[in-house]
Amino acid sequence: MDRIYNRIAGQSLERIAALSDGVFAIAMTLIVLDIRIAAPWQVHSERDLWLALVALGPRLLMYLVSFMTLGIFWVGQQTQLNLFARSDRTLSWIHIAFLATVTITPFSTMLLGQFITFRIALAIYWLNIVALGATLLWSWSYAMATGLGKPDVVDEATSRAMVRRIVVAQVLYALGAALCAFSTYLAIAAIMAVQVGYALGLNWGGHRTRAPG
Amino acid sequence: MDRIYNRIAGQSLERIAALSDGVFAIAMTLIVLDIRIAAPWQVHSERDLWLALVALGPRLLMYLVSFMTLGIFWVGQQTQLNLFARSDRTLSWIHIAFLATVTITPFSTMLLGQFITFRIALAIYWLNIVALGATLLWSWSYAMATGLGKPDVVDEATSRAMVRRIVVAQVLYALGAALCAFSTYLAIAAIMAVQVGYALGLNWGGHRTRAPG
Amino acid sequence: MDRIYNRIAGQSLERIAALSDGVFAIAMTLIVLDIRIAAPWQVHSERDLWLALVALGPRLLMYLVSFMTLGIFWVGQQTQLNLFARSDRTLSWIHIAFLATVTITPFSTMLLGQFITFRIALAIYWLNIVALGATLLWSWSYAMATGLGKPDVVDEATSRAMVRRIVVAQVLYALGAALCAFSTYLAIAAIMAVQVGYALGLNWGGHRTRAPG
Amino acid sequence: MDRIYNRIAGQSLERIAALSDGVFAIAMTLIVLDIRIAAPWQVHSERDLWLALVALGPRLLMYLVSFMTLGIFWVGQQTQLNLFARSDRTLSWIHIAFLATVTITPFSTMLLGQFITFRIALAIYWLNIVALGATLLWSWSYAMATGLGKPDVVDEATSRAMVRRIVVAQVLYALGAALCAFSTYLAIAAIMAVQVGYALGLNWGGHRTRAPG
Repeated sequence: MDRIYNRIAGQSLERIAALSDGVFAIAMTLIVLDIRIAAPWQVHSERDLWLALVALGPRLLMYLVSFMTLGIFWVGQQTQLNLFARSDRTLSWIHIAFLATVTITPFSTMLLGQFITFRIALAIYWLNIVALGATLLWSWSYAMATGLGKPDVVDEATSRAMVRRIVVAQVLYALGAALCAFSTYLAIAAIMAVQVGYALGLNWGGHRTRAPG
Repeated sequence: MDRIYNRIAGQSLERIAALSDGVFAIAMTLIVLDIRIAAPWQVHSERDLWLALVALGPRLLMYLVSFMTLGIFWVGQQTQLNLFARSDRTLSWIHIAFLATVTITPFSTMLLGQFITFRIALAIYWLNIVALGATLLWSWSYAMATGLGKPDVVDEATSRAMVRRIVVAQVLYALGAALCAFSTYLAIAAIMAVQVGYALGLNWGGHRTRAPG
Repeated sequence: MDRIYNRIAGQSLERIAALSDGVFAIAMTLIVLDIRIAAPWQVHSERDLWLALVALGPRLLMYLVSFMTLGIFWVGQQTQLNLFARSDRTLSWIHIAFLATVTITPFSTMLLGQFITFRIALAIYWLNIVALGATLLWSWSYAMATGLGKPDVVDEATSRAMVRRIVVAQVLYALGAALCAFSTYLAIAAIMAVQVGYALGLNWGGHRTRAPG
Repeated sequence: MDRIYNRIAGQSLERIAALSDGVFAIAMTLIVLDIRIAAPWQVHSERDLWLALVALGPRLLMYLVSFMTLGIFWVGQQTQLNLFARSDRTLSWIHIAFLATVTITPFSTMLLGQFITFRIALAIYWLNIVALGATLLWSWSYAMATGLGKPDVVDEATSRAMVRRIVVAQVLYALGAALCAFSTYLAIAAIMAVQVGYALGLNWGGHRTRAPG
């Protein structure tokens, strides 16, 4: 029986990684599809085109924010999968749930790009980030509870660092989103600041070698 | 000659898995593309945006249902591929047929999301699920008949469990769909209930370690 | 120096396969995107929906034809890659050219689905099939000429069979397309007949174990 | 600690390659999506369809240019990844930045296809090519500086050749783009000439066995 388990589980980790790379690749590319000149037939001069492109500013901004979001969570999921020795049916479903939150990103990105001054749009975008972090945290907690981690690699310290890092990131995102009380632009700027910090590998309560993002 | 066979077949299983991961990843992401504010130019206040989002309810519901459908059949196909020792030309074509039913899912999802109270839309969605199950059952039956399964892993019990599980699932989906006689919402709720059951790994006539979904 | 060559070349075959699986997966899924109710706001009854779906007939037909086309050429390319021992820069570019003809398929499919009674649309679709076959033939001829095939697997007989099979298929497609002189539907039916024949593995001048499609 | 690093890094190279193949596959396919008859309802005769297709000329041209651009940079990135022994967090982020410039390509392609006589559209397309080259150059310089290259494969000569090749290519692209002072068509023709040169493997200051494009 174990032989079946291990074979299926072994495959699973690879298939989860392959499906995830596909979903991330598509989500990263689709968020660009929405950046298009609204009324091309009204563009008659270089100046018209320039103004039309300037009008795309909010969407270009949201594309940057979402590309970083997806990049951070892609690295985060990859780091987890690299620390797992095997998978099981429940872990597969947790990652399918994680991928569901990834596929929602193009929707919340388009919404905020379209209605960048609306708090509801920002709230939905923030909830999307919360869902991305929550499913990733769920994945790690489940894997630790069921001993799916690589025994010779994952110790208590690593585990605590992973959890702390995700929690701290989410707290920072929440504080950033809260700034929409003053201005949605301010909130987006704050979220971007947190993302750039993670992309650059600044460690707020995380340990570099296992940085989940 | 066997050397050729084995090499090509060996590769095939990997290529089938890779193509499938790609098709599933795209189908899972495309079903979101259809969730967009119908008339953004009519949205002038937070309240307008909220109402516009509420109007997207049916599409969000269908997105959830279809994401679960695709997740279940992705796990189901993966479980089968993990139990096969090799592939052949016919099995490749059976899985290409299976992928055809996967690529149709975004269409039937959009259709039911758009016309959620129409029985024809629900019937087409249900036929899509039937086609997904039928091709997967065809794949398993063919593999068993031609001895493509891993000899040391796949025994009579496993085989019976796989077939029984797919058949039972399809019977439950059919019963759920039949509820559209009363209300399409009721039918969709019943289909979701079956899906959640499978996602949670409840075993109606299936054996956990080989659960195809 | 050889060590560099082999490493890079070895990787290349895998990367070509991975890129190809991605392109085929997306092309197979995108040809569905075009199948959508033209004027949903005009659908008020089950009967309206039924008529709207019937009106989608030509697009559904073209979806089937193109899915089979893509399936045949995916299997065909895969068979070739499995028979190659290594790749080089030129072979990579031949396969990038092949993928260009794959990415054009959704365009020619949409065009013929939209203008199914127009000879120009059919001619373009046929030229697409010609380009798919020509690049695959180019790939095989180049690989044979430069000795990239697996020495212990690929012999004269295999090589001749591969070439003959592609040529025969293209002749049959050309004859089918020529029927548009009478009716484009007749031509499409003939092309489908050829495809079904290949999908079922009927061997017109090909050898089953190396059937390129 | 090294054991963790190496495992994660080892995985990373594969995951970066997988994500990249996905992003390139989607970008290569999406640039076709924009090639569609503007007003199908106005097409009543074979002649109308022919004229409508002729009107798509600029978009078909841009599709060809961009497909070659993506092909060149796919081969270029692949060549680099094949020469790396391992990856680290920073290299992953450099390649995520590279992929961001890849996902922007469908946008700049559509823009230039739509406004092929506008200098701003050409400038944006050229800046996209600059960004593709700059991130790839960044990736190579970082990998050399931190010793991520395969020690037995990558020597000073290889490294200089890689850098020189990218720089020379960018200079040629810049000169080509500058021709838009006279005509954007002339500039596009020049850019295509450079691309065809690289696709054919002409070596301007590059060494064939490590040609990055």
